[in-house]
Amino acid sequence: MSTLITGIGELTTNDPELGRLTDAALVFTDRVEWVGSAASAPAADERVDVEGRAVLPGWVDSHTHLVFAGDRTTEFEARMAGTSYTAGGIAVTVDATRAASDRDLVDNVRRLVREAVAQGTTTIETKTGYGLNVADEVRSARIAAQEVDEVTFLGAHLIPPGADADDYVSLVIGEMLDAVAPHVRWADVFCEQGAFDADQSRAVLEAAAAKGLGLRVHGNQLGEGPGVRLAVELGAASVDHCTYLSAADIDALANSSTVATLLPACDLSTRQSLPPARQLLDAGATVALASNCNPGSSYTTSMAYCITTAVLQMHMTIEEAVTAATLNGAKALQTDKVGHLSPGARADLHILDAPSATHLAYRPGVPLTYAVWRAGVRQR
Amino acid sequence: MSTLITGIGELTTNDPELGRLTDAALVFTDRVEWVGSAASAPAADERVDVEGRAVLPGWVDSHTHLVFAGDRTTEFEARMAGTSYTAGGIAVTVDATRAASDRDLVDNVRRLVREAVAQGTTTIETKTGYGLNVADEVRSARIAAQEVDEVTFLGAHLIPPGADADDYVSLVIGEMLDAVAPHVRWADVFCEQGAFDADQSRAVLEAAAAKGLGLRVHGNQLGEGPGVRLAVELGAASVDHCTYLSAADIDALANSSTVATLLPACDLSTRQSLPPARQLLDAGATVALASNCNPGSSYTTSMAYCITTAVLQMHMTIEEAVTAATLNGAKALQTDKVGHLSPGARADLHILDAPSATHLAYRPGVPLTYAVWRAGVRQR
Ligand SMILES: [Zn+2]
Ligand SMILES: [Zn+2]
Repeated sequence: MSTLITGIGELTTNDPELGRLTDAALVFTDRVEWVGSAASAPAADERVDVEGRAVLPGWVDSHTHLVFAGDRTTEFEARMAGTSYTAGGIAVTVDATRAASDRDLVDNVRRLVREAVAQGTTTIETKTGYGLNVADEVRSARIAAQEVDEVTFLGAHLIPPGADADDYVSLVIGEMLDAVAPHVRWADVFCEQGAFDADQSRAVLEAAAAKGLGLRVHGNQLGEGPGVRLAVELGAASVDHCTYLSAADIDALANSSTVATLLPACDLSTRQSLPPARQLLDAGATVALASNCNPGSSYTTSMAYCITTAVLQMHMTIEEAVTAATLNGAKALQTDKVGHLSPGARADLHILDAPSATHLAYRPGVPLTYAVWRAGVRQR
Repeated sequence: MSTLITGIGELTTNDPELGRLTDAALVFTDRVEWVGSAASAPAADERVDVEGRAVLPGWVDSHTHLVFAGDRTTEFEARMAGTSYTAGGIAVTVDATRAASDRDLVDNVRRLVREAVAQGTTTIETKTGYGLNVADEVRSARIAAQEVDEVTFLGAHLIPPGADADDYVSLVIGEMLDAVAPHVRWADVFCEQGAFDADQSRAVLEAAAAKGLGLRVHGNQLGEGPGVRLAVELGAASVDHCTYLSAADIDALANSSTVATLLPACDLSTRQSLPPARQLLDAGATVALASNCNPGSSYTTSMAYCITTAVLQMHMTIEEAVTAATLNGAKALQTDKVGHLSPGARADLHILDAPSATHLAYRPGVPLTYAVWRAGVRQR
């Protein structure tokens, strides 16, 4: 079964040869089969005229925390009334997650995945990190692996209240890592004041690498810290947040293959500064955008909100922001199957109810998703 | 035909006695008939269980410019690439609007009204101002009056390129005002560097007041200027933008009945500062939020985006932001029929797919509109 999309107003392929096309057509099965000018489109089993709308690769949301229970409305309201954000609130979600049934956790992940897909997201990474004991981390990893594309072990999200830090790190890099590793491709650590320091973070990442897991780091969210440099030194695929960066951090990122993944919805939801995207891009770093969807610091699945913010407030161009939310999200997950629409890519298509991708920033807040296909299957 | 809404998780009434209710129910026809606790709800012809969702009055968007043709994607892209915003871009839309058919203008208004209503807006004000000659201003006013709740004459939007300023002001306050006045309730002037100065603005407003029109002012958008003080002095219902305010401006607003209508989507879309909402509120001014939907400086119908921005970035509380987008929008339009859900109000209901209004800021960018009734008629 093949589908021909005609009437494309603007096609963002993210293919280095094809670039951005107007008056284009595209044929797909579960993969993209053909891309070119509308006039020379081949036949297909089915034909969909999108009447001048823009077509993009689906969003690649490379950073979420979807396996949780409960919400943190009260904490959010307190923060908006002036209380400062610390990592401590995570413990509230840990308690709720441990107490929840498998069914409740699965339903929560599915609800958020459905919400994300309805807004054009077609690849989702999610993390453990609200279990913080062996059984609950394994359960989270198992559920995540069943529901999303990419799963990350984040046992090192927080030192559980009352636990000894060194004992907890030993558990994470020992028994917990052994039990979770079969279910995940990635490991991550929250390298931040109040969470894990540089030595603890290094221990976690090195143990995970020794197990064959790819590395990711939460770093430089609440202030300049060792996260970015550690990520670069250890060859992590991505270091996420990057809100507060020194000149040395920017330089290190620019001279590495580690992606700088920015999470602007989180920065705004915690009333922090926005990250120095322009400086990163001008220095030559690879920048991705992700939602960081979680109930504490960034309870959104909206990649469009991240893009709008990146363009209007972080001085990224539309093209940079769209690339960051698609191709560079895929780079942060070290996959070349998604995030672009070259022939052979997974057929993940996002059709906007607008003639160009520019409208994502030109029309802030307006829900613009018109249609979504994931691996060739219509989602919306 | 009456409808009973049950299962309300949180009901924002904006009624000074009723306030915000939990475990509430509401009965409406074309007006709100009854509000109270779920346990004592009366019977009705139809019953809708909203399963714990939040119910609010529909948004009152008190500032838009919907009667136009064309778009300004190219200008937006240029601005995002570093070009500064001046009022001059309006002339592009004037040319396109004059060249458009009545049918095209009506279709454009309807498209945007439909989009707004689908996001919870149930009262819309819109302005003329892309005609700038007698015939085209009358046409815009006539179309607006047929399609939206409140219409404002904005012949003084821009001095048409090539026209003499004094001649144009004479036209606006003479023949143009005479011809447009029968179709509108309000008059407005763009009192800003590059548009109309204090004397010209005063002449326009005084002539409109003499014709019996209510007054509105675009002021203090691009810098501190005379707009706010003129609006207060002449008893305007609202002064809109208020991005750059002196201490004297804030004081004047706090000691007046003129509403300060903030347009944060415009400020962000033009990469300006955000307005000093906290200072206005703390001083005791009445603050409204509106979209300023127009193709140049704020091409959005999303009141949710305005609220999210107001809370996360302008330090308004959720309650202040929701009040600003409902009750205070109605105050800016000097109507007591909408913007609240007291018995007798027009039955304009906005049901969120969330348990509380807090989620409008807690879940940035996520489309949360679940259902909308306008004057008791289901819209979505
Ligand atoms: Zn995170
Ligand atoms: Zn305006």
